[in-house]
Amino acid sequence: MLSQNLKGLIKNFGKSTSSVINQRKMSNSVNKHYDFNRKYSPVGDKNVWVEFTALARDFKAVNLGQGFPDYDSVKYLNEKTLECAKESSNLLHQYTRSPGHLRLANAIANCYGKLTGRDINPLNEVLVTVGAYGSLFNSLTSFISEGDEVIIIEPFYDCYAPISVIAGAKCVFVPLKPKTDREMTTSADWSWDTKELEAAFSPKTKLIVINTPNNPLGKVYTREELQQIADLCIKHNTLCVSDEVYEHITYDRAHIRMATLPGMWERTITVGSAGKAFSSTGAKLGWTIGPKELIRLCQSVHNNSIYCCPTFIQEVIARCFELELSRLDTDECYFKSIAAELKPKRDRLAKLLIDAGLKPVIPEGGYFMLADISKIAPNFHSDENECKDSKFVKYLIKEKDENTLEKAAEILKNLHVD
Amino acid sequence: MLSQNLKGLIKNFGKSTSSVINQRKMSNSVNKHYDFNRKYSPVGDKNVWVEFTALARDFKAVNLGQGFPDYDSVKYLNEKTLECAKESSNLLHQYTRSPGHLRLANAIANCYGKLTGRDINPLNEVLVTVGAYGSLFNSLTSFISEGDEVIIIEPFYDCYAPISVIAGAKCVFVPLKPKTDREMTTSADWSWDTKELEAAFSPKTKLIVINTPNNPLGKVYTREELQQIADLCIKHNTLCVSDEVYEHITYDRAHIRMATLPGMWERTITVGSAGKAFSSTGAKLGWTIGPKELIRLCQSVHNNSIYCCPTFIQEVIARCFELELSRLDTDECYFKSIAAELKPKRDRLAKLLIDAGLKPVIPEGGYFMLADISKIAPNFHSDENECKDSKFVKYLIKEKDENTLEKAAEILKNLHVD
Repeated sequence: MLSQNLKGLIKNFGKSTSSVINQRKMSNSVNKHYDFNRKYSPVGDKNVWVEFTALARDFKAVNLGQGFPDYDSVKYLNEKTLECAKESSNLLHQYTRSPGHLRLANAIANCYGKLTGRDINPLNEVLVTVGAYGSLFNSLTSFISEGDEVIIIEPFYDCYAPISVIAGAKCVFVPLKPKTDREMTTSADWSWDTKELEAAFSPKTKLIVINTPNNPLGKVYTREELQQIADLCIKHNTLCVSDEVYEHITYDRAHIRMATLPGMWERTITVGSAGKAFSSTGAKLGWTIGPKELIRLCQSVHNNSIYCCPTFIQEVIARCFELELSRLDTDECYFKSIAAELKPKRDRLAKLLIDAGLKPVIPEGGYFMLADISKIAPNFHSDENECKDSKFVKYLIKEKDENTLEKAAEILKNLHVD
Repeated sequence: MLSQNLKGLIKNFGKSTSSVINQRKMSNSVNKHYDFNRKYSPVGDKNVWVEFTALARDFKAVNLGQGFPDYDSVKYLNEKTLECAKESSNLLHQYTRSPGHLRLANAIANCYGKLTGRDINPLNEVLVTVGAYGSLFNSLTSFISEGDEVIIIEPFYDCYAPISVIAGAKCVFVPLKPKTDREMTTSADWSWDTKELEAAFSPKTKLIVINTPNNPLGKVYTREELQQIADLCIKHNTLCVSDEVYEHITYDRAHIRMATLPGMWERTITVGSAGKAFSSTGAKLGWTIGPKELIRLCQSVHNNSIYCCPTFIQEVIARCFELELSRLDTDECYFKSIAAELKPKRDRLAKLLIDAGLKPVIPEGGYFMLADISKIAPNFHSDENECKDSKFVKYLIKEKDENTLEKAAEILKNLHVD
């Protein structure tokens, strides 16, 4: 996703949805029921993924927005799938344990036990969810009550705000800003203003959502940055929902887990994803890790919305975890090799964007790249209905001639860059 | 699930959860955040499945409560799984279309098109969900606003009430009552009092939830009964959420779909389940079918809670549907053969319960059986904390000697009755 004016995008969040609500009102005459539940009215049904995935499909454009690899998922994933299918066990086709298939819960607890240096109880400190999305939904929905405030660091993965708003929260945004106007910047050059961060906390603050490595910026939070947030969470007795789905994809700096900072385990919910850990977004399998008192609340939402996740795919991912566990300290471990595999692709894409007249922000982690479009698209301006980056991307999808798009597709295909 | 006093169970819904809330208050001293979101307070984390599944596991009891088959799921399901795994397509391991994998949405639309005699648009009249549970969550959550009333026919599948309450509704219960006190009764002997049903509708009524064939009673609604509800829905401009997951499991009377009654398509959400249709509860795959204006609202909840369902399992179920579609009018079709397979088992279980001194209600559909325990358990009484049937089942699990349980397990194993 290309973005220059991120603050604009966020600020427009309310405006763009209000136009959706107006459309809704027109259908009231058909039936009073064809109108949104009041909780959903502020959010509407506008969704960047739905909108741009449909556009990409209709115009045969290469979709760089949705984060999934166009190369094969981790090699053994299909082998494990085949292995499970060959075993032909009826139990793999029937309900499993609601908070998580036992074999998977054990594997997750073992793996994160090693990664965090803390004993994790698979029975009550792990919840298996429908992707990281489901994990975020469960945790935000279970903690937020009407009138609470939620702090969100900008730029952010798109679901944090709507889920929080639906749960009844007021979102308080703290922007990451570039500390330099050099031609070449990295995500490390982006940081918050400490005063702005401090001012965001209030007696109404229920939780802060952080995302490291960050999507879409690629920023990997430093220990100092995490400590600053931790200090504020402890001072204001606030929870932290830490979305760490790109935990294994870091290029220039090691990932640090918020839950490992002193005093933070008891107030941190860590969100993980098999889609990112094993490059298999279609598994739609994620997990929530945290103290049992918080996991129990998340599980209550889980029990009242989906009850349990599919068994077969949980068994497959359990076996994938077990394989990585057996080689966790080696370079062959996929949790290490994936970053080594993606780093040269990152560098090539950055060069490509620079050659095309864009100014990329080199990401330290994750698999997205932001780029400043002002040089090549000076005539695009944000207005109250839409941000300029959204307009520009639509222009690229709809107006650019086929040759340009085909050429771009060819380059990207060779790059295997998502 | 054994039950004599269903009304007691329902009436106790509020009471038993209030004791849960008291337990919550005790943990307030640990951390203010370890307390429930206010929306979840009335529901708490009490869940009959979680409680009894754990008890069954701890005491090695046969779990007849949770509805999944102990015999192999439909034969070709694992073959299709194997087939998909062998194809080793990366696309089956990556995100698919948010409202449903296209091949599956097409198969569902084709199948229900034939079953209902109506063209169903796979692109906007079908939503693929995380089981029927996810479908019920999406529809109840998207339609209910704070202060709405929801009519629920008793006895009912346990999630209708808590999901409605969390969404902000007041539940209005209408009981099915036995019309006879004969020794031998069937689910057809149970019906509502028409005056009670009519009185349940008010200007605040947003929707009615029906379940045919009914879980746990096994009642298959007659056309007259459905018409009575349809007339009231139309008169009061009310939606109908029709949980029809046992649609193919009927023994003595054909299943009639609420959405096929005149004037009902536009106000009916039909809930279906691959777990029940293909005896594969572990797939955790369901669907919502209805007019596009209502599906769009359900999809908004779907987009903001899980975004999409796992790809691989959607492809597997799509292929299962395609096979059944090719033989929909033959006796080999699993949608027909499953009832023929289960009917003698139903009859044997009924005889077994009668021999054991119980008075079963012979179900016309589904795979549950209610039984009156008063003859063999005269000393169990409901109180404000727990119903007598719940106490009796706990007694069976905890106190009955191992020999009795082993004998029961052996009988059930031979019966292959879930």
